[in-house]
Amino acid sequence: MISVVLLGAGNVATHIYKAFSNSENISVTQWYNRTRASISSYANDVDITDQLEALKEADIYIMAVSDDSIAQLSSDLPFTDRFVVHTSGSVAMHDLDKKNKIGVFYPLQTFSKTAEIDFTEVPICIEVYEKENLQLLKDLAKAVGCKPHKITTEQRQTLHLAAVFVNNFTNQLYRIGHEICETKNIEFQILHPLISETAKKIQQMSPYMAQTGPAKRNDKKTIKRQLKLIEKDEHEAIYKMLTSSIKKTHNISSDYKVKR
Amino acid sequence: MISVVLLGAGNVATHIYKAFSNSENISVTQWYNRTRASISSYANDVDITDQLEALKEADIYIMAVSDDSIAQLSSDLPFTDRFVVHTSGSVAMHDLDKKNKIGVFYPLQTFSKTAEIDFTEVPICIEVYEKENLQLLKDLAKAVGCKPHKITTEQRQTLHLAAVFVNNFTNQLYRIGHEICETKNIEFQILHPLISETAKKIQQMSPYMAQTGPAKRNDKKTIKRQLKLIEKDEHEAIYKMLTSSIKKTHNISSDYKVKR
Ligand SMILES: NC(=O)c1ccc[n+]([C@@H]2O[C@H](COP(=O)([O-])OP(=O)(O)OC[C@H]3O[C@@H](n4cnc5c(N)ncnc54)[C@H](OP(=O)(O)O)[C@@H]3O)[C@@H](O)[C@H]2O)c1
Ligand SMILES: NC(=O)c1ccc[n+]([C@@H]2O[C@H](COP(=O)([O-])OP(=O)(O)OC[C@H]3O[C@@H](n4cnc5c(N)ncnc54)[C@H](OP(=O)(O)O)[C@@H]3O)[C@@H](O)[C@H]2O)c1
Repeated sequence: MISVVLLGAGNVATHIYKAFSNSENISVTQWYNRTRASISSYANDVDITDQLEALKEADIYIMAVSDDSIAQLSSDLPFTDRFVVHTSGSVAMHDLDKKNKIGVFYPLQTFSKTAEIDFTEVPICIEVYEKENLQLLKDLAKAVGCKPHKITTEQRQTLHLAAVFVNNFTNQLYRIGHEICETKNIEFQILHPLISETAKKIQQMSPYMAQTGPAKRNDKKTIKRQLKLIEKDEHEAIYKMLTSSIKKTHNISSDYKVKR
Repeated sequence: MISVVLLGAGNVATHIYKAFSNSENISVTQWYNRTRASISSYANDVDITDQLEALKEADIYIMAVSDDSIAQLSSDLPFTDRFVVHTSGSVAMHDLDKKNKIGVFYPLQTFSKTAEIDFTEVPICIEVYEKENLQLLKDLAKAVGCKPHKITTEQRQTLHLAAVFVNNFTNQLYRIGHEICETKNIEFQILHPLISETAKKIQQMSPYMAQTGPAKRNDKKTIKRQLKLIEKDEHEAIYKMLTSSIKKTHNISSDYKVKR
């Protein structure tokens, strides 16, 4: 049985709490948040506190708090030589105060309080400073059915960067698709099956192999027609940049010029 | 029972053939392709031909051929006053020769011969020149379990443009994520669950509501750190453009400047 004290009560902490408290091999000893109100509804299920001084002993302290507050909160912990990890994709492990043993437990997924997540599908990127704690973090991930991946700080930050492209930027392309539909009174929902399929396809083949469309086909007529159809300069700039990026990837010479 | 002659043997025609031949309310009278070899393996199941002169009578002729060949092939058809549709997202309905009755049956999905598709989930965008054929196209879509959407040519071309953003451009962002992972020897597969979840999320809330990440949070420190981590100028330009697009969408002032 791995005992855990959880710090923070945001998107990540809430999902971690739910997954951990359903695991037979993890006991959540205590849940801390500086604002007690956010966790008070769990008071019947778990020991809750808003006092750092009241923190109990545990095998692991998981700090799922805002990136900017990780360093300070880790210094404020009123104990030493225990095992403290954060859950951030971008904060360095060494931002954690070294009076404790330190590590990272980064769940590579997008969490919001409302959306249900199958936590067992979440890859957990782990990092430790003291090697003896590696197995503990691996066991913790496995205790909730997740696959642990041992990575370096540089790899984690690189993954976080890649995640921004495939998650935040992709979502912005969905947003642009939504805007384009709205201008002509088309329901964005019509695009849902296409969006699902696009994401599903690359689970079976590489994105390189999966590419289709006018840029990949070097279909200049369609590209020209679509550029004329675009109403916002910002959309036009993104269209041109990503079209030329696709052409570069697939070694197609980029020679279209369009007068509007 | 709706009788159909299918023309073309590419990605779309192959999926249409499979879905139609499984429907109780559709009979595929004949399958034409200029290259007989591509359909000869179906000769036991359906009447096949590579001769336009041999085309039989049917309620609908579906031309699932390359965009550039639609106009010419429709003129080459050796009959008049029958009902001929194409399946393109971007070709105008009026490119079809008006010696026949004309329309469009555009399946809004990405097809490749290898990837299985649940055809019943594919939205079908339909357009007709002669109103009396509207019901027939609707019935055809419903006969394979699809939802028909009556739209105008302009709406179809707008949808096709939006599809390029949410499908082709999104796939290119996956490709960039893949490239970024490769530079640091990280398996791209670690990002699969995040990619699925990103696509799933907008089926429950708008892309506007679903947005997260450093640009949305206006987290300048992370943006700066990530820009330093990017190795390719092309990725940097896309990062900056989409970051500023997210900021614009969410009314965040775009004031970061980065020296490299
Ligand atoms: N959201 C994701 O998709 C995701 C995915 C992977 C990793 N992460 C990482 O997980 C961590 C938490 O993210 P989140 O999305 O859960 O954040 P969040 O929802 O914004 O929650 C932030 C939590 O941090 C607490 N906090 C903020 N400043 C604090 C301070 N100065 N002292 C003590 N506690 C403080 C907040 O307490 P109050 O309740 O009192 O405000 C809140 O409980 C971050 O490192 C983030 O990078 C997030
Ligand atoms: N792929 C998609 O994801 C998708 C989605 C929605 C709509 N569409 C539209 O559906 C149509 C077909 O696309 P596809 O992806 O199936 O294309 P494809 O796989 O490239 O197949 C093209 C077909 O057109 C035939 N063809 C090409 N030039 C011809 C000519 N001059 N005369 C007669 N036949 C000719 C080809 O015959 P051969 O076998 O002899 O070469 C082949 O059967 C296009 O209008 C496309 O815009 C495609």
